[in-house]
Amino acid sequence: MLKPKKILNNPNHVRQELLDGLVYAYQGELTPIKEFCSAYRKSIASDQVIIVSGGGSGHEPTFAGFIGKGGIDACALGEVFTSPSPDQIIEVTKAAHKGKGVLFLYGNYSGDSMNFDIAAEILAEEGIETKTVRTTDDIASAPLDRMSDRRGVGGIMFVYKLTGAAAQFKHYDLDKLQAVAKKANFNTRTIGVALSGSALPQSSTFNFELADDEIEIGIGIHGEAGLRRQKLTTTDEVVKEMIDKLCADLPFNRGDKVCVAINDLGSLSYTELLIVSRKVGMELAERGITTYDIAIGHFCTSLEMSGFSISFLKLDDELQALYDLPCETFGWRK
Amino acid sequence: MLKPKKILNNPNHVRQELLDGLVYAYQGELTPIKEFCSAYRKSIASDQVIIVSGGGSGHEPTFAGFIGKGGIDACALGEVFTSPSPDQIIEVTKAAHKGKGVLFLYGNYSGDSMNFDIAAEILAEEGIETKTVRTTDDIASAPLDRMSDRRGVGGIMFVYKLTGAAAQFKHYDLDKLQAVAKKANFNTRTIGVALSGSALPQSSTFNFELADDEIEIGIGIHGEAGLRRQKLTTTDEVVKEMIDKLCADLPFNRGDKVCVAINDLGSLSYTELLIVSRKVGMELAERGITTYDIAIGHFCTSLEMSGFSISFLKLDDELQALYDLPCETFGWRK
Repeated sequence: MLKPKKILNNPNHVRQELLDGLVYAYQGELTPIKEFCSAYRKSIASDQVIIVSGGGSGHEPTFAGFIGKGGIDACALGEVFTSPSPDQIIEVTKAAHKGKGVLFLYGNYSGDSMNFDIAAEILAEEGIETKTVRTTDDIASAPLDRMSDRRGVGGIMFVYKLTGAAAQFKHYDLDKLQAVAKKANFNTRTIGVALSGSALPQSSTFNFELADDEIEIGIGIHGEAGLRRQKLTTTDEVVKEMIDKLCADLPFNRGDKVCVAINDLGSLSYTELLIVSRKVGMELAERGITTYDIAIGHFCTSLEMSGFSISFLKLDDELQALYDLPCETFGWRK
Repeated sequence: MLKPKKILNNPNHVRQELLDGLVYAYQGELTPIKEFCSAYRKSIASDQVIIVSGGGSGHEPTFAGFIGKGGIDACALGEVFTSPSPDQIIEVTKAAHKGKGVLFLYGNYSGDSMNFDIAAEILAEEGIETKTVRTTDDIASAPLDRMSDRRGVGGIMFVYKLTGAAAQFKHYDLDKLQAVAKKANFNTRTIGVALSGSALPQSSTFNFELADDEIEIGIGIHGEAGLRRQKLTTTDEVVKEMIDKLCADLPFNRGDKVCVAINDLGSLSYTELLIVSRKVGMELAERGITTYDIAIGHFCTSLEMSGFSISFLKLDDELQALYDLPCETFGWRK
């Protein structure tokens, strides 16, 4: 049986230590609240609605790595694959809040929802208004007629980017910001595949095992079961099926303008990722769908999982104008 | 025995297909020469010296992924871990050349040196002047008194960035460009460690094997043997030793201003990479060395190798002014 191999200090200090790493990476732009394992950016304008996110660690650079100019404002870091607690969310929200309200924006998982909702209640008692949008881009996690049951995965980067631009550069109020976050989430669809599982820092086994010649289509970012397992075939076959499924879902049609994210789930080689990208480009061109922009790299990982996900964001005029604004975060710079 | 697991189309078409992927990623900014598996950027100014690089595939985004504004101008892609041929180098150089001369800038490996030298001879006969700088940043590959025997690894990104800025924005002539490339290379030092090997696309075995509890200190980017193998200890112990070695080498001293690259060699998780980054920051702060800037991510990989490298670039006034200029390449955007 394959055994995970990692280099760490203390497996129980992962989230604290990676927060230290992020603080170093941000070179002064990030204020950590160490005792609540959370952080917010230094240059929040006094007249903006703030965007607060959070989630389990192990998906770096998601979530905290998207704090920044044209990104989110604050984030609470849970233990690996575990929701942050209400007190973490409350403390970082209070520290970052400028009196104009708060958008809670995070992936749709029951633990996160519960704890953000508790935080929202307590903050309301203290006079801080919050609204919530949960991202639900993983098309493999529930059928189209149960969209609100879908999980949030790699496509959150697009929702962060568009709402960050709206809050920081266009001064959207809280209602308008929630509306654009909902639209951005609705217009974003993702599907992932895995060649291997990943392992919690404390664990000596992987969260799931695939045979040497197997691939899982529709994998979740914590190793949640996908649509099916099948024989590992070629890049082109797998990517074609993923794009068939993505295009049928929203749908994405001939003449649409989309932004594309091709995301490494952890340990797929960059070489393979570029061969994936080639096929994505060919498929979109063949379908008459315009690639407005493309991001390739590690955006939402699952520790050392080998695999990748493809996200499409369909643009309209409002989203395109927001997309064109600067984005200078650790996880994504364009 | 651990077996490599990849998703590919044809293992013999890796370099052609990843070039297609890059062309898609660059969204029109890259002109490929498909029959010579090479590419150059569209917006080369008519009065600039061009920078041509090349090397084996499998290190993505190095080498071709650093083509761009504030980066290099042209690149020839060899087969995986194999030098490009003289005709590839000649064709892409002739296509990109603007009549102001050419800097050949690539990692110090015998095959690359031989083929770039042959290309230089043939281009000279056609009236195209070239000068060469080979990068030698891998401090583990030969002792300090044989610096010219050292291999080029991840630090090439700094040399690309500084010379790209000098050629494109400061209009350095060929002599001055060669001089700044030499200085940038001299001021750049790298050391890497591996937790696993990598495998050629055609191979069913890894290029080397490490036990579950072993790490190799000083690994090369093709799996060349490092300084030693040892028991896998903690991130902090390993990083401290790496920084001890880097600092002793140039040396990097209290009061120095350095740019830092923390590079994933392929399949180390981003989570672990951020914990590495934390310790790099702590060590530099403790030594009184100023971090001027920091890049964290996948810059020079070795297929699916698990491991990381740390590169330091020491700045002086000229290099700092060049460093501050824009860099908008696929592999690195700042």
